[in-house]
Amino acid sequence: MQQPAKVLLSRQRRRKGNLYDAECPSRIVLDHVTSRWGSLVLLVLLDGTLRFSELARAIGGVSEKMLAQTLQALEADGLVLRTVYPTIPPKVEYSLTRLGGEAATHIKALTDWVEDHVADVMAIRSKRSAAQG
Amino acid sequence: MQQPAKVLLSRQRRRKGNLYDAECPSRIVLDHVTSRWGSLVLLVLLDGTLRFSELARAIGGVSEKMLAQTLQALEADGLVLRTVYPTIPPKVEYSLTRLGGEAATHIKALTDWVEDHVADVMAIRSKRSAAQG
Repeated sequence: MQQPAKVLLSRQRRRKGNLYDAECPSRIVLDHVTSRWGSLVLLVLLDGTLRFSELARAIGGVSEKMLAQTLQALEADGLVLRTVYPTIPPKVEYSLTRLGGEAATHIKALTDWVEDHVADVMAIRSKRSAAQG
Repeated sequence: MQQPAKVLLSRQRRRKGNLYDAECPSRIVLDHVTSRWGSLVLLVLLDGTLRFSELARAIGGVSEKMLAQTLQALEADGLVLRTVYPTIPPKVEYSLTRLGGEAATHIKALTDWVEDHVADVMAIRSKRSAAQG
């Protein structure tokens, strides 16, 4: 018996992603959470709600344009919540959703490891450079 | 009392990285392990040693050029070990170092989460698109 298209679609939506498949949308999600600015936005929001200017100050080297694009992508993915308070001027705050908090926790484990081991990596790199002349 | 340059350098090397600092080399390490192909190479090598052609087949959409560049960067960081066997033609195998295995374990936790939640993200995105007309 053929299934109605809607049921098939909903079943497909529940399917687990496969990052080895070039066409799988999980690749887009991975890009958003691991991009240079995406990962740092998730990381800093793990410590609490922030305004745009506070985010821009916390993350060294990010431009306003890149930060805005990053926040839009994470908001569209349902990872970041943008709250606008009807004050004059309007106050806009960014926080993690439940889903975003989960992603951010994995990012934090990874970035903690990177911060803890950058010295090891740099030592390996300079040893190799020295050995190669 | 002034410290000899070598002692200062070695002390600096041991320092923890800071990803919020635009000048910190930890940003380069994070880029290598979270790049589209870097993350997938670490992930697939977590399952065992592979040859170049096997890596290229496992990771959908990667070009030979990008795979070679990715492997070189991860090898220079001390995360991937390249072993050449003196056969004719030479057999070249890639595996994770101890350090690479640690990084790959964190990448796996993150990519598992992405694969498990891509359906949630896609559902949020299509709901937003529908709401926006």
